[in-house]
Amino acid sequence: MKILVAQLNFKVGDFENNLPKIIRAIQWGKEKGAEIVLFSELALCGGFPHDLLLRRDFIFAIEHSWKEILPHCLDVMVVVGTPRRHANEMLNSAMIIQEGTIIGFSDKKFLSREGDFQEICYFNEGQRGISCWQWKGKKIAVCLGENRGLGEQACQGSRWDLILNLSILPYRYDAFSLRMALFKAIALHSSSPLVVCNAVGGNDHSIFDGYSLFLDQEGKCRQCASGFQEDLMMVNLSSFPQQAPSEPNSLEDLYNALVLGVRDYFHKQNFGKAILGLSGGIDSAVVACIAIDALGKNEVTALLMPSEYSSKKSVEDAQVLASRLEIRWELLSITPIYQLMLKVLFPFFHGSSFDHTEENLQARIRGMLLMALANKWGCLVLNTGNKSEASVGYCTLYGDMVGGIGVLGDVSKGMVYRLAEWINRDGERIPLSILTKEPSAELKWGQTDRDSLPEYAVLDLIVKSYVEDLLSPEEITSLYSFPNEEVMKIIHRIDHFEYKRRQAPPYLRVTKRGFGTGRTYPIVWGSF
Amino acid sequence: MKILVAQLNFKVGDFENNLPKIIRAIQWGKEKGAEIVLFSELALCGGFPHDLLLRRDFIFAIEHSWKEILPHCLDVMVVVGTPRRHANEMLNSAMIIQEGTIIGFSDKKFLSREGDFQEICYFNEGQRGISCWQWKGKKIAVCLGENRGLGEQACQGSRWDLILNLSILPYRYDAFSLRMALFKAIALHSSSPLVVCNAVGGNDHSIFDGYSLFLDQEGKCRQCASGFQEDLMMVNLSSFPQQAPSEPNSLEDLYNALVLGVRDYFHKQNFGKAILGLSGGIDSAVVACIAIDALGKNEVTALLMPSEYSSKKSVEDAQVLASRLEIRWELLSITPIYQLMLKVLFPFFHGSSFDHTEENLQARIRGMLLMALANKWGCLVLNTGNKSEASVGYCTLYGDMVGGIGVLGDVSKGMVYRLAEWINRDGERIPLSILTKEPSAELKWGQTDRDSLPEYAVLDLIVKSYVEDLLSPEEITSLYSFPNEEVMKIIHRIDHFEYKRRQAPPYLRVTKRGFGTGRTYPIVWGSF
Repeated sequence: MKILVAQLNFKVGDFENNLPKIIRAIQWGKEKGAEIVLFSELALCGGFPHDLLLRRDFIFAIEHSWKEILPHCLDVMVVVGTPRRHANEMLNSAMIIQEGTIIGFSDKKFLSREGDFQEICYFNEGQRGISCWQWKGKKIAVCLGENRGLGEQACQGSRWDLILNLSILPYRYDAFSLRMALFKAIALHSSSPLVVCNAVGGNDHSIFDGYSLFLDQEGKCRQCASGFQEDLMMVNLSSFPQQAPSEPNSLEDLYNALVLGVRDYFHKQNFGKAILGLSGGIDSAVVACIAIDALGKNEVTALLMPSEYSSKKSVEDAQVLASRLEIRWELLSITPIYQLMLKVLFPFFHGSSFDHTEENLQARIRGMLLMALANKWGCLVLNTGNKSEASVGYCTLYGDMVGGIGVLGDVSKGMVYRLAEWINRDGERIPLSILTKEPSAELKWGQTDRDSLPEYAVLDLIVKSYVEDLLSPEEITSLYSFPNEEVMKIIHRIDHFEYKRRQAPPYLRVTKRGFGTGRTYPIVWGSF
Repeated sequence: MKILVAQLNFKVGDFENNLPKIIRAIQWGKEKGAEIVLFSELALCGGFPHDLLLRRDFIFAIEHSWKEILPHCLDVMVVVGTPRRHANEMLNSAMIIQEGTIIGFSDKKFLSREGDFQEICYFNEGQRGISCWQWKGKKIAVCLGENRGLGEQACQGSRWDLILNLSILPYRYDAFSLRMALFKAIALHSSSPLVVCNAVGGNDHSIFDGYSLFLDQEGKCRQCASGFQEDLMMVNLSSFPQQAPSEPNSLEDLYNALVLGVRDYFHKQNFGKAILGLSGGIDSAVVACIAIDALGKNEVTALLMPSEYSSKKSVEDAQVLASRLEIRWELLSITPIYQLMLKVLFPFFHGSSFDHTEENLQARIRGMLLMALANKWGCLVLNTGNKSEASVGYCTLYGDMVGGIGVLGDVSKGMVYRLAEWINRDGERIPLSILTKEPSAELKWGQTDRDSLPEYAVLDLIVKSYVEDLLSPEEITSLYSFPNEEVMKIIHRIDHFEYKRRQAPPYLRVTKRGFGTGRTYPIVWGSF
């Protein structure tokens, strides 16, 4: 039996383009002799639709699109993810089509409460996690999503000839083997071969990584589709590669995820051009590389906006980088505007000394210049802040926090360095001096990040433990033997600066818990 | 039997202050002869805690606080809202204390999926919606929240001597009678008197309005606690007022809700001082009045930031208003900075003509000046944008969209006018010319809102239908007989500008669906 796994990139609600994509894949599959064509979860409407699911016209459009597919499904079993209404309930389902007829649905049982989307707010739980269908004399089970519950249910089930899984799994850094283990459990417990079709593509802050899978009945991975791009993977149950595919490289994956996230955020909105501030620091250097690989170097403009506090070396580094990357760059000193702002504000400052006000002013002038050029030229601004900064509020609201999309907002400073090293693996794309210099915001004389922050190695560990792993301050203190006072200071900052992050651009999500959608902390609350 | 309804204002996670408040209310109740003291839903931890509920240390702190209350509960039945863990589940419960002992819990069954908070993401469903307890020879039912399901369940139940309800219901404009009807159904269907304790106070964008209730067994309202402030209401089952309390005034309630929302947003964060831009328009005038009533006139500073496009009348109106309200005001022309910005950017604009870039620049200079003074003086910026503008993106990101809290972000332009009239009910607090002038952003010569927007009366209806009532474009077109083209144009704008609102300040919520938390639309999606 041959199964075509159609790992495709859909745009939410874009039926006009999603439907022909689906139909072409079915036709291609039939031509190549596939007896089953499998699509990903929510393929028909793209994922994740969020509140569009509350709109009747959205649901009508989905149901209407079903009819368009049916005529193309003669002589083939097609399994495609779609929301559906059933007796006052909304279900996240796999639609099963045989011989041009919808023969039924398999409804998702294990719904997410957290992460990139809260399915439980939109969908009702399906009755059964796994349902079984007959096709060409075989017993074929169908299930949705990645959940331990499916493995347990597979344990109790009878042996199937094949399990089909539809998923829309967001990329998570270094979590490929965890996902593999969950799917392995399903195959192993039911002693059935398992074919998984995962979504691919970026939607807002979410990045679906693809990597659709075929596991044999012993749970061994036999085939793996491409990561971060569309792929049509043909699985032949009676003849498949004996060698397991190689595991992906974590850093390469992270880089590719961010590239895909940027590209789809732009292209799915019909935006081509990006602008970013290039400071000579590592964050903006890495974002520039990602932007070029996502959009093409002719579409990326860098703005160098030095002040009196910028070191000569930083400006030089930024210039060398821009030239080396062959992107357009412009130099625009903020000094005249900054000086005028200070003069205008002087009567109101009552002779008080330089503080965060003046630092924020510089960052905000830069934000304003970036936005002005973006408005005039029709570009989107790329935000270059990283997760470590966002965590402790080491950033200026309406200043360096401007932008349409935050490229590194879920990437810790430590990981930004590792990304830079990976970018430079075959040659010095990013000048070495950018990697080796002491990080600084350069908003006052002789400033470095270490004046206000602990070592990034320490900060990153605490942020990961607190934000991603939900450990309590006490647990973090005892786990890493950090001084309790230092841990508390950082956690207090993370809590306090929720108000800044509430107004941050969407951050591309690459860890299990980032800031923004999926992490809802109150702004106003008392420490306990 | 006497029941003390302790309608109190709690801060999320602030056990240090919430607990003494609870204990003082119990003691007061006992002194006054209460046999039952009833608190609101989630009283112990304050509401809504969102992701704090995922933290083990938060749950430990809650459980620890239980022990503090018990010694004060001799000779009295105390019913208090608290989250609780039970066998791998998290429940939203009423803790029942009798004679200093926890005798059990009543768990909330009907959990919200939308609105100000998605309970279903945090809590498991309780087994029964209503549970029954014995006290002083009476059968006392306990339930949580406001839900049709409770009324249906009450139908099937045996008659109780009393029903106690714990709620944390956010304020909704003009929805008092709807709430009353839901509670009436519970009392009526079970032929039992019903005592409701609702939370009061602001938390982030949520405003809990109080108005705790006592309904007799015929469902008639006999007592109603204050709205928008703490209240200790004693209910005597054998002797209560025969006259129903009067219904609240909708406009007065809306105004009080916004005042409470601002006050608690500031004071619960230990902020006292506010700053806002005063344009001479109606939005900032209304926000100034709200700020004064929330914080005191000595705590509010107004900044007048005219440009070459500001009419003389606007500046005059703003000055008259500020003087009449007796708040500090400062005049700071943006012209020099705007001119310098244009000069600096000139080489990059390639002789292109004046467009939204220049308009945005002016708004962003104002935002930057407000933020600079706020930073230097230790104030929070009040955002003055209204819901009509936010809907169609008639506002500038990082410009007039700056601020710690959006006071009118869930109030339509039409309602802003009605609020202004209400503010002026006993005299012209807001100069009449501000109410009567044509609305204009004054970002270019002769500009009025009508150049870019339909009449506000039409816009507001479409926004309400689409955003609050979830009607489809077709339904709106046929409901109001508006031209389909006009409806589609507005809806397209609402959809398109999601990216701006994603970076807006939290908007105080006063309708059933506003922007921000509780409305999650994708940014990137295709129209269908």
